[in-house]
Amino acid sequence: MTGHIRYHRDGALGRVTLEHPGKFNAISRSMWRELRAVFVAIAHDTALRCVWVQGADGHFCAGGDIAQYPDFRFDPQALHDFHEIDVWGGLQAMLDCDLPILAQIEGNCMGAGLEIASCCDLRYAASTARFGAPIARLGFPMAPREAALVAAAVGHTTARAMLLAAQVFDAQHMAHSNFLTGVLAHDDLQAHCQSVVDTVLGLSPMATRAHKNGFRALNRLEAQVKPACVATELIAPGAVQDPLIPYAYADHAEHREGITAFLAKRKPQF
Amino acid sequence: MTGHIRYHRDGALGRVTLEHPGKFNAISRSMWRELRAVFVAIAHDTALRCVWVQGADGHFCAGGDIAQYPDFRFDPQALHDFHEIDVWGGLQAMLDCDLPILAQIEGNCMGAGLEIASCCDLRYAASTARFGAPIARLGFPMAPREAALVAAAVGHTTARAMLLAAQVFDAQHMAHSNFLTGVLAHDDLQAHCQSVVDTVLGLSPMATRAHKNGFRALNRLEAQVKPACVATELIAPGAVQDPLIPYAYADHAEHREGITAFLAKRKPQF
Amino acid sequence: MTGHIRYHRDGALGRVTLEHPGKFNAISRSMWRELRAVFVAIAHDTALRCVWVQGADGHFCAGGDIAQYPDFRFDPQALHDFHEIDVWGGLQAMLDCDLPILAQIEGNCMGAGLEIASCCDLRYAASTARFGAPIARLGFPMAPREAALVAAAVGHTTARAMLLAAQVFDAQHMAHSNFLTGVLAHDDLQAHCQSVVDTVLGLSPMATRAHKNGFRALNRLEAQVKPACVATELIAPGAVQDPLIPYAYADHAEHREGITAFLAKRKPQF
Repeated sequence: MTGHIRYHRDGALGRVTLEHPGKFNAISRSMWRELRAVFVAIAHDTALRCVWVQGADGHFCAGGDIAQYPDFRFDPQALHDFHEIDVWGGLQAMLDCDLPILAQIEGNCMGAGLEIASCCDLRYAASTARFGAPIARLGFPMAPREAALVAAAVGHTTARAMLLAAQVFDAQHMAHSNFLTGVLAHDDLQAHCQSVVDTVLGLSPMATRAHKNGFRALNRLEAQVKPACVATELIAPGAVQDPLIPYAYADHAEHREGITAFLAKRKPQF
Repeated sequence: MTGHIRYHRDGALGRVTLEHPGKFNAISRSMWRELRAVFVAIAHDTALRCVWVQGADGHFCAGGDIAQYPDFRFDPQALHDFHEIDVWGGLQAMLDCDLPILAQIEGNCMGAGLEIASCCDLRYAASTARFGAPIARLGFPMAPREAALVAAAVGHTTARAMLLAAQVFDAQHMAHSNFLTGVLAHDDLQAHCQSVVDTVLGLSPMATRAHKNGFRALNRLEAQVKPACVATELIAPGAVQDPLIPYAYADHAEHREGITAFLAKRKPQF
Repeated sequence: MTGHIRYHRDGALGRVTLEHPGKFNAISRSMWRELRAVFVAIAHDTALRCVWVQGADGHFCAGGDIAQYPDFRFDPQALHDFHEIDVWGGLQAMLDCDLPILAQIEGNCMGAGLEIASCCDLRYAASTARFGAPIARLGFPMAPREAALVAAAVGHTTARAMLLAAQVFDAQHMAHSNFLTGVLAHDDLQAHCQSVVDTVLGLSPMATRAHKNGFRALNRLEAQVKPACVATELIAPGAVQDPLIPYAYADHAEHREGITAFLAKRKPQF
């Protein structure tokens, strides 16, 4: 059984569900492509007023689908294409959306899940949800554009703890770090999200699109200073001329060890 | 009875009071002009060391004076002049002040009140105060420069919830979002503000002006990247050549419906 | 007895201790130079994976060594050299470090201590720690680059309260302001820091250096917009041509009064 990004239109509301049974909705390659397709479809549907993103079966998303990683991660070109085409394609389609996007977050919100949530406007989580990106345990760094996206959304202090020290945080911490809009008791989360969505649906769509485009414009202003290509270039000098430079670690022994150890359910030795 | 911005000089302290009886100090057009005049006067008074802003009668400010809106909001040129000359004139005069400005916030701090508080340095609120800008209920978006100002002060997560979902927040939330410097029990607020003002008045004025100018310089640095005109241009492409573009919504049916419904005390239909 | 920056290498961990007995580890001129030397040595030691900074004897650092100030603060050139060569030399060496730096913070974390902590990635404090920079009581402003560094780390709302109103904050406030990564009971702090360090030491060093360089690159991106020289120039126009302009206050009566009063243990009169 493989995962899917489910889409369901419910009047002026678009419902997006991350679904990968048995894997806490880990995002596979094909799911990143489906995520892009869903948000491209949303962009063409002018009757929509709001988008609601959630995970299936009590989790938001546990990260990437690590079982697939040996297929493509150890070759620089394949690794580049995964991050720059599949992953960023999905995330950029979300960032291009000119409607309010609400994320309802339960359970694990890790790695890829944190990146997807970072593209949403209104983030409500159950008090039991957990957030992190402990990928240095897997022997590789977050891709430059993705790291810049997450650092902006969770704040530099929390991002440093997540990436440099593999720390995992609870919902209360993520509310204090201003990543979450609100934290609810698990049993109240769904009703609270419904109530916020109902409010959004009752607002002036003209004003709401203007507001969302305003936030996107403010982010584009930051992007003039911190464009993804510049982030990539600075983190990995030379990347503009040779886009594989940020992914030159593909064949690195620590990268192989991290992923191999994870799949073998043993502790990695770095 | 119409509102006023009251100014009283008390030694080295300038006291500014937002006062509009019966309207929770809603800011009328003439009050925006008075706000500018007061802060221009403060700029020329070199013996001042501190400014203390508060609202009269238990509220900071409930927003704009909506009763006046039918007079000018439905014409693009008049709407432009209101936002770019009257409103921004008052806010810019506050931003130009090189003294510490303390805001004492009780009751409602909404819309225009939130914008005025965003121009202050030290923000103390009663635990019962409420913050928001639910103007999409009124059928129109916050003007670009004002939205950029508020988003910088309250943070993007809270600003998105306020503007995209008409959410209203309590003082505790606004402290966690780092908008407020402190939250006090209602009965302790006045004394706490007095104590902070006393401390400010006892510091080296040379050092304090240097510090305030430092913060203003850091903001001007951001303004080189996120200048108001660029924000306006990006949110409403073409605005540099045609400044009415951001206000082309003046005659929009949702704008008329929102304001008309509010004044008729009925729910708007968008 | 004069202070020192102690350095001890413990396997892949570099341990840095701020130590100035009887002065809560106040940083003297020679300690700023030693701080630079220690971090230059760390930069050349490729076997290191993590750096752990703490203060001796229950305090992080109470600020600068004010007893030395009459020796050099009242002459613009000497004051310039102190801030731009000694102080910034130490801070820049910390900012250049491509390893995760953990700060363990107990007791006072004031002025120079706050600046040193601002150069760390992971900041854990005892719940009893105190944070501030009430230097306007001493009759002088924080130097431009140092103020920009602190404002970015503690956030503008808290920085304004610290510098404009001499406010001192507890650890809980500094966690909410997203300066601290975590707050621990005093007796749990050491063990918690050890556990985070152990985690960092077990991660992929390749991934960790890539992450740290990523954060440094994001900061360099900001520095393209908010470079220290531009901050200095804007805060003190003309400083690029005449670098003494920001330090022209050296002989100012308030500066002399603030430091003299402090050393005489009396209240300054500004």
